[in-house]
Amino acid sequence: SELNSFFALTLILNPNVKFFRHEIVGVVTEVGANVTKFKTGDNVGVGCLVGSCGSCDNCTEGMENYCPKLIQTYGFKYYDGTITCGGYSDHMVCDEGFVIRIPDNLPMDAAAPLLCAGITVYSPMKYHGLDKPGMHIGVVGLGGLGHVGVKFAKAMGCKVTVISTSEGKRDEAINRLGADTFLVSRDPKQVKDAMGTMDGIIDTVSATHPLLPLLGLLKQKGILVMVGAPVKPLELPVLPLIFERKMVVGSLIGGIKETQEMMDMAAKHNITADIELISADYVNTAMERLEKADVRYRFVIDVANTLKPSPNL
Amino acid sequence: SELNSFFALTLILNPNVKFFRHEIVGVVTEVGANVTKFKTGDNVGVGCLVGSCGSCDNCTEGMENYCPKLIQTYGFKYYDGTITCGGYSDHMVCDEGFVIRIPDNLPMDAAAPLLCAGITVYSPMKYHGLDKPGMHIGVVGLGGLGHVGVKFAKAMGCKVTVISTSEGKRDEAINRLGADTFLVSRDPKQVKDAMGTMDGIIDTVSATHPLLPLLGLLKQKGILVMVGAPVKPLELPVLPLIFERKMVVGSLIGGIKETQEMMDMAAKHNITADIELISADYVNTAMERLEKADVRYRFVIDVANTLKPSPNL
Repeated sequence: SELNSFFALTLILNPNVKFFRHEIVGVVTEVGANVTKFKTGDNVGVGCLVGSCGSCDNCTEGMENYCPKLIQTYGFKYYDGTITCGGYSDHMVCDEGFVIRIPDNLPMDAAAPLLCAGITVYSPMKYHGLDKPGMHIGVVGLGGLGHVGVKFAKAMGCKVTVISTSEGKRDEAINRLGADTFLVSRDPKQVKDAMGTMDGIIDTVSATHPLLPLLGLLKQKGILVMVGAPVKPLELPVLPLIFERKMVVGSLIGGIKETQEMMDMAAKHNITADIELISADYVNTAMERLEKADVRYRFVIDVANTLKPSPNL
Repeated sequence: SELNSFFALTLILNPNVKFFRHEIVGVVTEVGANVTKFKTGDNVGVGCLVGSCGSCDNCTEGMENYCPKLIQTYGFKYYDGTITCGGYSDHMVCDEGFVIRIPDNLPMDAAAPLLCAGITVYSPMKYHGLDKPGMHIGVVGLGGLGHVGVKFAKAMGCKVTVISTSEGKRDEAINRLGADTFLVSRDPKQVKDAMGTMDGIIDTVSATHPLLPLLGLLKQKGILVMVGAPVKPLELPVLPLIFERKMVVGSLIGGIKETQEMMDMAAKHNITADIELISADYVNTAMERLEKADVRYRFVIDVANTLKPSPNL
């Protein structure tokens, strides 16, 4: 049956390093009989997806992330009816088709956030051709997504400008993350000086914010990629789109094949997320700090060494 | 000098049929010494452009319409400092590089609006690959742009749905223009039934209007093309873009090469605009009727036969 065919492919993960809900890494502890891609002891990761239909156009093209029957790693109903628990577990069973190999030279804790943050910025850059050396890429917002966006764009050979609402992150952007330039979006002079210079902009901001200055920064035919998921509609000025054939596009994580490509590129260029490693009992404090955006840039929970077994298990 | 090189290429047009500001047709009455593309007696047209720099990337790629030094046919400063007058003239001098041949089988009056309305819908369909047989294309708004959008999309072999705010134009859309289906965007049931079915939507509406139902009608990776130029920003819901990799793009008329392609395709498929031919002394009444959208779908002024010479000339 369909269910069996999936479970014939499962392998057993023990995330004995660290994880973060759907940015999970671990070491393979056991593999099912039909598993061919991985063996016990491999360093692996699981991102946002643990299942999809396997037969729609998206699945056959390696874009399982857009499969209408997508099963997310956290809070979705799995094939067997159970609810997926993400990385908040001390072990995990996963179809090998949704498992990513973590190359040996990457530290597993700092590689974990690439499984969501990394692929979220990497996928649209590839899909829309914003990965060419010499291109000028803007990155709006310097958080979990934005800071790895800077690193991937630099690794692709692009000129990178971090776009922020205030001067506060200039030093961080240029001296720590390696951006080429920094631009305050609320300063009309700075925006004016950079008008029409960017091939693409990766907008990671989820708060309501104006798109007009961002559209102005784009070259003709430039692409504004929205990955920050603002809940309320944003104001879209249409004339700048029309007069210069600009585009506003959205993008959602990525497929398994391109997630592996992203991870391999990260290994080649030593790209990791900047993280703060915490113990399981620090989670509530971490959540409070997240509310204040007080983390550079991802908390990673060391489950293997710090999670106490539940008394109910 | 640069000026001379342009004027060496001029030819003289007498629009002795009809015209409409920047949708101008006529017969060549005289050609300059270096003109090679046209000869006296040819049926030709001039669209929105009469000049561009000729050397930027846009110009060399045949997209003069996005040249930063674009000279529009109406109200722009020409190379010699004079202001362009568009079709409100009884003759016209134009660089042959901006002249379109009107194939013999097209009626010149009804072909004229294709020079702006036609290319405005044709160009983005080609550029974004929305011209494939079997695709499902939505057309929002049934005016000058929309009605030729329906005709071109049908000629490309697409299934065409006209999207309108009320039932009023259903018969017109289907029985007169040949659309396959008609959808009232304010009817949640009709929108729901067509959710996720369209490859692309050409939005010709210039009034403020909601984009959410239109984005919902698109398939994954579908493209919403804005050509209607609303002056005020529209509300852009971002989540539908992200979750299904949808795009909102703008497009502005088209280049000369593709305008000729569009005209040749129109000739092949007998596509013309639906027009009402008027005399020059009817212009003020026509303007009043335009305010009420009371025309199907373009007025064309018969200048050659009805314009009286100015006493000052």
